[in-house]
Amino acid sequence: MDKKIVTAFMKQGARIETRARVPLKEKKDFSLWYTPGVGAASTHLAKHPKDARNMSVKKNSVAVISDGSAVLGLGNIGPYGALPVMEGKALIFKSRADIDAWPIVLSTQDPDEIVRTVQAIAPAFGGINLEDIAAPQCFDIEKRLVESLDIPVMHDDQHGTAIVVLAGLMNAARVVKKDLKRLKIVISGAGAAGTAVAKLLLTAGAKDIILLDRKGAIFKGRDGLSAHKAELAELTNPRGEAGGLEEAMRGADAFIGVSGGGLLHADHIARMAPRAIVFALANPDPEILPEAAKKAGAAVVATGRSDFPNQINNALVFPGIFRGALDKGVKKITDPMKLRAAKALAALVARPTKERIIPDILHPRIVKTVAEAM
Amino acid sequence: MDKKIVTAFMKQGARIETRARVPLKEKKDFSLWYTPGVGAASTHLAKHPKDARNMSVKKNSVAVISDGSAVLGLGNIGPYGALPVMEGKALIFKSRADIDAWPIVLSTQDPDEIVRTVQAIAPAFGGINLEDIAAPQCFDIEKRLVESLDIPVMHDDQHGTAIVVLAGLMNAARVVKKDLKRLKIVISGAGAAGTAVAKLLLTAGAKDIILLDRKGAIFKGRDGLSAHKAELAELTNPRGEAGGLEEAMRGADAFIGVSGGGLLHADHIARMAPRAIVFALANPDPEILPEAAKKAGAAVVATGRSDFPNQINNALVFPGIFRGALDKGVKKITDPMKLRAAKALAALVARPTKERIIPDILHPRIVKTVAEAM
Repeated sequence: MDKKIVTAFMKQGARIETRARVPLKEKKDFSLWYTPGVGAASTHLAKHPKDARNMSVKKNSVAVISDGSAVLGLGNIGPYGALPVMEGKALIFKSRADIDAWPIVLSTQDPDEIVRTVQAIAPAFGGINLEDIAAPQCFDIEKRLVESLDIPVMHDDQHGTAIVVLAGLMNAARVVKKDLKRLKIVISGAGAAGTAVAKLLLTAGAKDIILLDRKGAIFKGRDGLSAHKAELAELTNPRGEAGGLEEAMRGADAFIGVSGGGLLHADHIARMAPRAIVFALANPDPEILPEAAKKAGAAVVATGRSDFPNQINNALVFPGIFRGALDKGVKKITDPMKLRAAKALAALVARPTKERIIPDILHPRIVKTVAEAM
Repeated sequence: MDKKIVTAFMKQGARIETRARVPLKEKKDFSLWYTPGVGAASTHLAKHPKDARNMSVKKNSVAVISDGSAVLGLGNIGPYGALPVMEGKALIFKSRADIDAWPIVLSTQDPDEIVRTVQAIAPAFGGINLEDIAAPQCFDIEKRLVESLDIPVMHDDQHGTAIVVLAGLMNAARVVKKDLKRLKIVISGAGAAGTAVAKLLLTAGAKDIILLDRKGAIFKGRDGLSAHKAELAELTNPRGEAGGLEEAMRGADAFIGVSGGGLLHADHIARMAPRAIVFALANPDPEILPEAAKKAGAAVVATGRSDFPNQINNALVFPGIFRGALDKGVKKITDPMKLRAAKALAALVARPTKERIIPDILHPRIVKTVAEAM
């Protein structure tokens, strides 16, 4: 199967290209759109740099940038490993939201170098989509870029994931007739996605969240917590529960897996509260297959895959987020925007069911709906 | 006039965009070209990074990069000032050579930062076109990038200009029935373009070149020569002539202006040898207008403008150079390639005349001809 896909990519070459939006057929076209015409445009932009948003690619462009340090579930596979994903996102940006995105993969994984590089190339772009950058560096890199640039910067593994998970969880809670604010939520994975999911769920009113990393539950005072996990320990796990996944799952209303394939077993699910929600989002191998999760008693199951119902995928979010940000001249993507986007996305499913808590990726109104929420 | 152009750019927005080369209409499209398909492509490229040239945008992409330090004849007008030119070049790359170029303008003008930034973003690109970077930094920046990257890097202000000037001069020499190797050539401007023109003309066999900067002729031992001008003094001005433009023009066979508008007068041209060649290439205002140059006795006159005959413009060169480099997997653009490109371009004009020493920008075989010479 993999060989067949690689062959298809080889045969295809690039999945995106550029396209001229003006003709260059006659001398007068060259005079206007190249020389001497560009001289007037350049002179104008030197004096009025803000007009770049109206008279250049900056109007509609997003750089999709990765250092290849945490690509999908494949880990640190470097810039060339990251390139197919970034190019795929650029393809989705165009196909779904008519955004001109260009993939950029970096030959450095040094946080300072990444920040400097993105700052250096920012002027021609209308937005920056960071992608597949490992935690915890991703938090500081994103923060410094958000603070220093005057265009929207979003690490999609964090916030795209958080928004789509919140949207799905809102509808899943409706299906099982529980209040999101009272759910006991277990999040497996405390990297970029798990951290952002936890924070956005807290912002949405959730109060009882336990995050697990490879050493088990994160709680205040656990030995050797990094700065970012110490912060998570402050924000989550109100009862200070220690222990592993087995302990955390006791009485849990929702499980959100953004960690690794296959780590969830039937007996974990059997320990959960009645009408349990299971989001097994690891890609391509979910924490548990939907069939097995249901058999073990889960009421609502979602994965990141397109071949099962309830696909919780960032692609439902990032095109609309940047479409809205570009259209509205948004400079920072804020928590209220993320909450509104999640609510709007959830509301696209008028009557959620166990098999449909989130709109299908092909739903025609997704991008517009998310964009308008910005 | 300028206002009208700015309005046209405002109305137009971007002049280039991206375009999907694969469909994303059905679930199976997402599965192949996004997730989980990209996982297989990423895994493959992590192991075989060289295949990025065959299965990603790297196959056909060029970054057009400027720091805005020497934009056209406008000077140091920064990244936003540079953006219309870079986007215009990306437009020409696509329209003329079907190359997917993306404009990148830098918020830094520090040479080390520029080198580091270009190195950092290089992996997803098949080539780097540096543009409008001031001398003398441009020489060192280009050299370090050529040496450190495994994709072709070319500062077009230098080499694109040098190739098209050499092509034009070859045919102009034919028209006036002189041997290029015996011409006395005066080059006004010792920046990026003037330096590269001088060096390529020397490589092509010219022996008698005098370069002038704002202080006059560059000669060995002139007070306060910078390193790069000291090198030029070694290579050129065999008789060690001092003095200004007036002195240098005495008996000159060819004048090549890559400096500033209007600096050439009728009496300068009157001092030249019979059947003089005048390339007044400053943009948008040439060193002298063709009418005036001819009246003063010049036999062949060229400018950089499209509204006069004999337009000597880089756009005749850079699309074909990169088309050839991408198609042939060229990693460094060498002097023999530049010479071959100039000869091939000149040969496109079967019977050069005073009014036609260089092919028209709309000539259909230019790109292919230059590409094949690579």
